Amino acid sequence: MFSRDTYISRRKTLKTLVHQGIIFFPGNGESGMNYRDNCYPFRQDSTFLYYTGINNIPDICFIIDIDNDVGILFGDDPTPEEMVWTGAVKPLAEFAEKSGIGQVKPLKELPEFLKTRKEKGQRIHYLPPYRGDTSIQVGELLGLPIDKVEENKSEVFIKAVVQQRSIKSTEEIAEIDNAVNITTQMHLHAIKNAVPGRSEKEIAGELQAIAIAGGGNISFPIILTRNGQYLHNHATQAIIQEGDIILCDCGAETSMNYAGDMTRTFPAGKSYSPLQKEVYNIVLNAHNTAVEALKPGVLFKDVHLLACTKIAQGLKELGLMKGDVNEAVANGAHTLFFQCGLGHFMGMDVHDMENLGENYVGYNDEVRKSDQFGLKSLRLGKALEQGNVLTVEPGIYFNPFLIDSWEAQKKHTEFVNYDEVKKFKNFGGIRVEEDFLITTSGSRLLGKPLDKTPEDIEKFKSL
Amino acid sequence: MFSRDTYISRRKTLKTLVHQGIIFFPGNGESGMNYRDNCYPFRQDSTFLYYTGINNIPDICFIIDIDNDVGILFGDDPTPEEMVWTGAVKPLAEFAEKSGIGQVKPLKELPEFLKTRKEKGQRIHYLPPYRGDTSIQVGELLGLPIDKVEENKSEVFIKAVVQQRSIKSTEEIAEIDNAVNITTQMHLHAIKNAVPGRSEKEIAGELQAIAIAGGGNISFPIILTRNGQYLHNHATQAIIQEGDIILCDCGAETSMNYAGDMTRTFPAGKSYSPLQKEVYNIVLNAHNTAVEALKPGVLFKDVHLLACTKIAQGLKELGLMKGDVNEAVANGAHTLFFQCGLGHFMGMDVHDMENLGENYVGYNDEVRKSDQFGLKSLRLGKALEQGNVLTVEPGIYFNPFLIDSWEAQKKHTEFVNYDEVKKFKNFGGIRVEEDFLITTSGSRLLGKPLDKTPEDIEKFKSL
Repeated sequence: MFSRDTYISRRKTLKTLVHQGIIFFPGNGESGMNYRDNCYPFRQDSTFLYYTGINNIPDICFIIDIDNDVGILFGDDPTPEEMVWTGAVKPLAEFAEKSGIGQVKPLKELPEFLKTRKEKGQRIHYLPPYRGDTSIQVGELLGLPIDKVEENKSEVFIKAVVQQRSIKSTEEIAEIDNAVNITTQMHLHAIKNAVPGRSEKEIAGELQAIAIAGGGNISFPIILTRNGQYLHNHATQAIIQEGDIILCDCGAETSMNYAGDMTRTFPAGKSYSPLQKEVYNIVLNAHNTAVEALKPGVLFKDVHLLACTKIAQGLKELGLMKGDVNEAVANGAHTLFFQCGLGHFMGMDVHDMENLGENYVGYNDEVRKSDQFGLKSLRLGKALEQGNVLTVEPGIYFNPFLIDSWEAQKKHTEFVNYDEVKKFKNFGGIRVEEDFLITTSGSRLLGKPLDKTPEDIEKFKSL
Repeated sequence: MFSRDTYISRRKTLKTLVHQGIIFFPGNGESGMNYRDNCYPFRQDSTFLYYTGINNIPDICFIIDIDNDVGILFGDDPTPEEMVWTGAVKPLAEFAEKSGIGQVKPLKELPEFLKTRKEKGQRIHYLPPYRGDTSIQVGELLGLPIDKVEENKSEVFIKAVVQQRSIKSTEEIAEIDNAVNITTQMHLHAIKNAVPGRSEKEIAGELQAIAIAGGGNISFPIILTRNGQYLHNHATQAIIQEGDIILCDCGAETSMNYAGDMTRTFPAGKSYSPLQKEVYNIVLNAHNTAVEALKPGVLFKDVHLLACTKIAQGLKELGLMKGDVNEAVANGAHTLFFQCGLGHFMGMDVHDMENLGENYVGYNDEVRKSDQFGLKSLRLGKALEQGNVLTVEPGIYFNPFLIDSWEAQKKHTEFVNYDEVKKFKNFGGIRVEEDFLITTSGSRLLGKPLDKTPEDIEKFKSL
């Protein structure tokens, strides 16, 4: 938990931005897996945590009554009989005190509280729920049919949260550095241990153990695969083979729910093949070029397109693409190889604030999201600001289904040498990903650096 | 996946039991963690899996139209563009074929299908949902307000599922043996590695890695704690200390979703203290006595009470209890030390079928659940049948809150020596748990045996 003043100050700003009414934060409950009481690891809602600092307690709600300038935490301490199961639990009043929240009330008073305030004409602001249980709760509390919950979300509340959470404070940045450093430990373990004969899942489990030992858990499902050409291909029971390149995209989340998110692509054996190294270096060059372009004011969409151009240029030199590189990128021909976006905001969520809606988070009235293949998967397009934290993660992916489909459609034949490309249908995929903070005049790498040239990665394999 | 005939036969029996109407199985969807697309590990609904054998595919539904004798799988194969993210995915038709399901239809046809059938007067049978997302889905599909979904569940369907799933087949038992054997590996790792200086969470992460390497995941959140007196005390960042006894209650779930569930309580250092060993042996004696009593026809409630008597007897010999042992148990005085139930069914869920409701699963019209403290936490009370799989897990827990609360209330002073009990407020808790199959005349331990005497466990510590 950060200091009391941090939370008081965040809420003060929020009140100013939302201006009037009641701000309602339903904290997350437990999430049942195969029955209600067999739960997935509890994950507090990030916005709830951002404004209260209270983690690891399910089924509590927080209210800011702007009009009457009070904050109330609704929740219940366990009874002695419940402590048979839970053990000692700090009273909510103690958490409220540490967060500078003035009042604590039993959860059963929440329905009447909200009903009364609604009847008095106070607007109840809430964010769009992303769990069915929360939708049901919000619907019941506010007397809304379930299909009206989404549309009654508060746009002014969403925009205020995006404005505040997009700019990371010094203490948040230290926490993200910490998350990235744990993530680096996971990658070092993967590079050294994902060797021929072991299964993808075995290694993925070991990486999760490192994240858990770090005090939190994984920030998203681990991608550790010999089939890196599929973008969200999670670890399977496949056995790693000599000659494979392994794509590992994983991240730790700290006990305060700040995320790291990195990717390395490395040989299963001792070294990359010369061709693997060539493709790797195209990706690395695009990565480095993009990182150099990061600074306040630049559109991330432009940084994305710059990286695309570097990828197209490299693939042209390799004989897989042809024609004018800029024209190829403008037409989207490069998306045969790089089908997704260059990066995304990162913070208390690995795709930070994704639950609030991309049009508010990564885009705005000036920069609207494209629906072109490739660009439509770019989660961040708008101008960067000092204090933003984001990932840079270009890649080249030889997806055999897409290659076949495009060739059959004769798509972009003026820019793609399908006869050459077809030879890469079993190549796999390569991505290089790191996390950056936007500074006054450029960017800073988050966490301690982890080697990323093919030569340096090969050194880890011989340790 | 088991054989095609297995699933055909299970569905045939189900049709006979439910008799008429439509049986609706909404498969589980992905479960969002901190936003919709950042998902917890996918977990298929156990009943869906039991009758279809189709695992690891979210957002599919299955229908048995009893009246017209057809089975239809509703779901969508990924488009080539979606395969950019997912990679190659076997078509649903292939899964349907392996399961003996006659038809596959796109998911978008499901609402109209159900609407039409409902209008024709066919009863739509479904089980009580345990996830908010499923409640919303069922409500929308069947035109029910969200608060009417639970009450419209089908009792005849619930009873049929309980009848079938309660009796394990040979192939299921083999799968449970497998789950228990992976669980045993987790315990061996814990006993050897949970040593002074390491954190509970570090060890818990390593145990999860073993479960994941086994092909599935953990069957429930790992309890690994120096505070075993709290029944569901999950691993924390607490550092293990010399002199601690560590309670480890964990289980693996196989790739077919069958669970193991075992507990061992072992010293952090090389050996138990003499007192720890004395209390351990009371628990072990209760455990062994209960196991010997297992056989078809016996009420599990009676086995529970038998174990309680052994615990009370042992605590009387230790000077913590007094008076007539049987009277003490009848009055619930032993629940100061053993606050929960002796065991539960186990299968595709670690608390098997808990989502269907305890009154259908662990109790019936003859044996009703008690609301007495202790007995109300006993999940299984009814007569055992050949083919049942269950846990036996007695324990002694010195919960300081409960001790203080009962002493203040002067509760059961005729059976409890509070002056002696108070000396144990920092003792912790001990549980010994194994999994059993009910056979024709008794029971069989599931999985390969893992040592459980204090002396044998100490041997692992010196390896």
